[in-house]
Amino acid sequence: MRILAAQLNPTIGDVEGNAQKVISALDRARRQKADVVVFPELTLSGYCPDDLLLDSRFIDAIFQKLEEIVPHTKGLFAAIGLPRSSGGKKEKLLYNSVAVCADGKLLGFKNKTLLPTYDVFDERRYFEPGEEEILWEYMGRRIAVTICEDVWQHAKSVGYTHYARDPVLELKEKRPDLVLNLSGSPYSYGRNHTRLSVFSKAAKTLLCPLIFCNQVGGNDQLLFDGYSFYLNEKGELIQQAKGFIEDDLIVDLSTHACPSPPDEHPTKDLYSALVLGVKDYFHKQGFKQALLGLSGGIDSALALCIAVDALGSESVLALTLPSRYSSKGSVADSRNLAKNLNVELIEVPIEPIFKSYLDLLKESFRESPLDLTEQNLQSRIRAMILMAYSNQYGALLLNTGNKSELATLYGDMAGGFAPLHDVTKRKIYELARFINEKGEIIPQAIIDKAPSAELKPNQKDTDTLPPYEMLDAVIEDYIEERLPVEEIAKRRKLELEFVKDLVHKIHLAEYKRRQAPLSLRVTLKAFNRGRQIPIVQKWI
Amino acid sequence: MRILAAQLNPTIGDVEGNAQKVISALDRARRQKADVVVFPELTLSGYCPDDLLLDSRFIDAIFQKLEEIVPHTKGLFAAIGLPRSSGGKKEKLLYNSVAVCADGKLLGFKNKTLLPTYDVFDERRYFEPGEEEILWEYMGRRIAVTICEDVWQHAKSVGYTHYARDPVLELKEKRPDLVLNLSGSPYSYGRNHTRLSVFSKAAKTLLCPLIFCNQVGGNDQLLFDGYSFYLNEKGELIQQAKGFIEDDLIVDLSTHACPSPPDEHPTKDLYSALVLGVKDYFHKQGFKQALLGLSGGIDSALALCIAVDALGSESVLALTLPSRYSSKGSVADSRNLAKNLNVELIEVPIEPIFKSYLDLLKESFRESPLDLTEQNLQSRIRAMILMAYSNQYGALLLNTGNKSELATLYGDMAGGFAPLHDVTKRKIYELARFINEKGEIIPQAIIDKAPSAELKPNQKDTDTLPPYEMLDAVIEDYIEERLPVEEIAKRRKLELEFVKDLVHKIHLAEYKRRQAPLSLRVTLKAFNRGRQIPIVQKWI
Repeated sequence: MRILAAQLNPTIGDVEGNAQKVISALDRARRQKADVVVFPELTLSGYCPDDLLLDSRFIDAIFQKLEEIVPHTKGLFAAIGLPRSSGGKKEKLLYNSVAVCADGKLLGFKNKTLLPTYDVFDERRYFEPGEEEILWEYMGRRIAVTICEDVWQHAKSVGYTHYARDPVLELKEKRPDLVLNLSGSPYSYGRNHTRLSVFSKAAKTLLCPLIFCNQVGGNDQLLFDGYSFYLNEKGELIQQAKGFIEDDLIVDLSTHACPSPPDEHPTKDLYSALVLGVKDYFHKQGFKQALLGLSGGIDSALALCIAVDALGSESVLALTLPSRYSSKGSVADSRNLAKNLNVELIEVPIEPIFKSYLDLLKESFRESPLDLTEQNLQSRIRAMILMAYSNQYGALLLNTGNKSELATLYGDMAGGFAPLHDVTKRKIYELARFINEKGEIIPQAIIDKAPSAELKPNQKDTDTLPPYEMLDAVIEDYIEERLPVEEIAKRRKLELEFVKDLVHKIHLAEYKRRQAPLSLRVTLKAFNRGRQIPIVQKWI
Repeated sequence: MRILAAQLNPTIGDVEGNAQKVISALDRARRQKADVVVFPELTLSGYCPDDLLLDSRFIDAIFQKLEEIVPHTKGLFAAIGLPRSSGGKKEKLLYNSVAVCADGKLLGFKNKTLLPTYDVFDERRYFEPGEEEILWEYMGRRIAVTICEDVWQHAKSVGYTHYARDPVLELKEKRPDLVLNLSGSPYSYGRNHTRLSVFSKAAKTLLCPLIFCNQVGGNDQLLFDGYSFYLNEKGELIQQAKGFIEDDLIVDLSTHACPSPPDEHPTKDLYSALVLGVKDYFHKQGFKQALLGLSGGIDSALALCIAVDALGSESVLALTLPSRYSSKGSVADSRNLAKNLNVELIEVPIEPIFKSYLDLLKESFRESPLDLTEQNLQSRIRAMILMAYSNQYGALLLNTGNKSELATLYGDMAGGFAPLHDVTKRKIYELARFINEKGEIIPQAIIDKAPSAELKPNQKDTDTLPPYEMLDAVIEDYIEERLPVEEIAKRRKLELEFVKDLVHKIHLAEYKRRQAPLSLRVTLKAFNRGRQIPIVQKWI
């Protein structure tokens, strides 16, 4: 039996376009002499359409489209994901379902049993749980169709949830010969590794091969890495699709291939994820041109590399906006970087405008020194000039802030998209070194200089912030791992008061993050979707 | 039997402070010779603590605090809301629960049966449903304890949800003598009316008196109006607590009071809601001073009235920031308004800064006219000056935009709090007239002038937008009522293409709204919490 896992990149709500991708994959499957085709979760709507699911016309349109697709399954067994009415008598209106088709006919549906409602997942808002595990016979094999989370309870890898049911154990009693899994499993740093171990446990319990088909692409904050795979009945990895790109994984169950360890390259994957996120946001939304300010620092340098890899150098415009406090090196380094990447760089000194504000405000605030206000003014003038260019060129302004800034009160919120908002400063350096592995793209001077906002003479980030090694360790432990402050202090060998103070700062900045531009989630917990912390609260 | 419904204003996560409020209410109840005390839903945590609920220390601290409170129920029957561990073997870690205490002892718990997971509610993210309805005997009466949503299914007033169970019908079989309901039922325009009819239906089915105790106060976007009430066994309203303020509703079941129709004053309530929202955000978060820009238009005039009523005129600072396009009337009207409200007004003409930007940008964009960029520049310069004042004075900048602007691409996102973001232009006028009922506070010239951003000569909002009557009708029908475009066109007698175009514009602005400041929800559907529409989507 030959199986094609169609690792597709759907666009949310593009019923017609997603259906065309399904029909093309079915055609490719026939050409490749496949017998079975498996798609990602919610194939026809894309994962996850959120409140579009509440529009009954959307659900009807998807069902009509399914009826058009079914005849294209001639000669094949196909499992196609879609949201589907639960019939109106259930608590929720829909199932997160799979249409199971064979040889041009619709055999029936399998509904998702376990509905993740934690972290970035909100499935109980829309869906009713499925009730039973079903096997489908095709070409003498008993095929189980499962949907993402259904396999995860078995490895107890389901956040702070303990489902009463374990569909893997329920399936075990039915003795399937093959398990298909349709997933919309989002990327986070190192996630492929976790996924392989979770699915391997299921394959070992079920004693049969397992094929995992994941969505690929960027949908708003969520990134999907693909990396679909085929595990044998011992839970060993036999084949894996490419990451961060559409791919057909073609599996032949009759050939006895050797298991191979997965390629693991977490930094490269992180970079690919960020590039894909920018690319898909621009392309799916119809933006053509990106614009960003180069400060001479490492964040904006990395952001420029990502933008160029995502959109091409001709679609990216860079500005350098020196003030009286900018070092000479900063402008020169930005020039070198732009040259290396073949990007047009425009220099706009902000001094005349800065001076006109200072004249006005010094008049208004004769008695109080400006200090912080004066620093903020420079960032805001830069933002305004960048936004004026954005208006004139119809270019989307990228915010180049990182997660370490976003955690504290520093960093600005200007721009319409913030690709690095879930990347800590430590990871920014890791990515910069990765970029330069095959030759210097980011000038070494940018990597070597001490981080500085250059908003007053001889300023360093460490004047107001702890060193990034310490800051980032606390962010990772507190935000991503959700550890208590005492444990963080012990584990990282930091003063408890220092950790408490930093955690307090993180919560003080909650209101500011509410106004952050759309960003990309690349860790287990980003400061956006999936983290619902009240602004006003007295607990922390 | 005498019952005290303690309509409290808890602060999210303030376990100590909320517990003190509970203990004081128990003391007052004894002084008032009450037998029974009922509190709002999740009394000890406040509704709703969101992801604070995932911190097991928070849950432990609340339970410890409950143990301290129990002895204070000496001589009373008390129903106190709290989140509570489900014991670790359920799908979710917690119950949304009520501690039922009598005469200084904990009798047991009642867990919420129906868990709203739609609109602004997310309860399945945290809670496990309760399993059975329970009666508690006290002073010869059989008392039922219910929690908010538990009563709503009976009236089928539960959004797009159809719970399999109806706790009201389940209770009916047990024949209670009295029903208590602990609620965290948020305010929206006209909500009190809906609530009364939903609870009236339950009282009629159960043939016994019903006491509804609601939370009051502002918690981030959500506003709670209080308006706790007592319905007799015929479902008639006998007594109602005040709206928008903490209040003890004291009910004596033995006196035969006459039913009275509820006071209905939706515009006054809306105004009270906005004032309470600003007041609680500032007070609970510790902000002392508000700052806002007066444009001479009606939005900023209304925002100033609200700020003054919430914080006092000495805590509000206003700026007028005229440009070359500002009418003389605008500055004069702002002066009159500030004078009427006894607020300090600072005039900062933006011309010198505007000119310095124009000089710079005209040099940069020699070939393309500035137009929109030039208009945006003025708004941004104003925002920057306001933010500089905000920095210098430590004052929180209020954004004065309204829902009609937020729906389309117009309006700016500057400021840390946007009290009017869920108020359409039509309601803005309604509120302005309400404010002036007892004498002219907002100068009539501000109410009478045609809406204009005054960013270019003789500009009117209607140059780029349809009249607000049409715009607001579509916003209400599409966003709040979720009607299809065809139905809106028919109902409002508008061209279908016009409605479609406007709906398209609303979705185009999705990315921009993602960066909106915290605002207050006052309709059934605000552009923030409770509305999860993807930015990138091809359905609409």
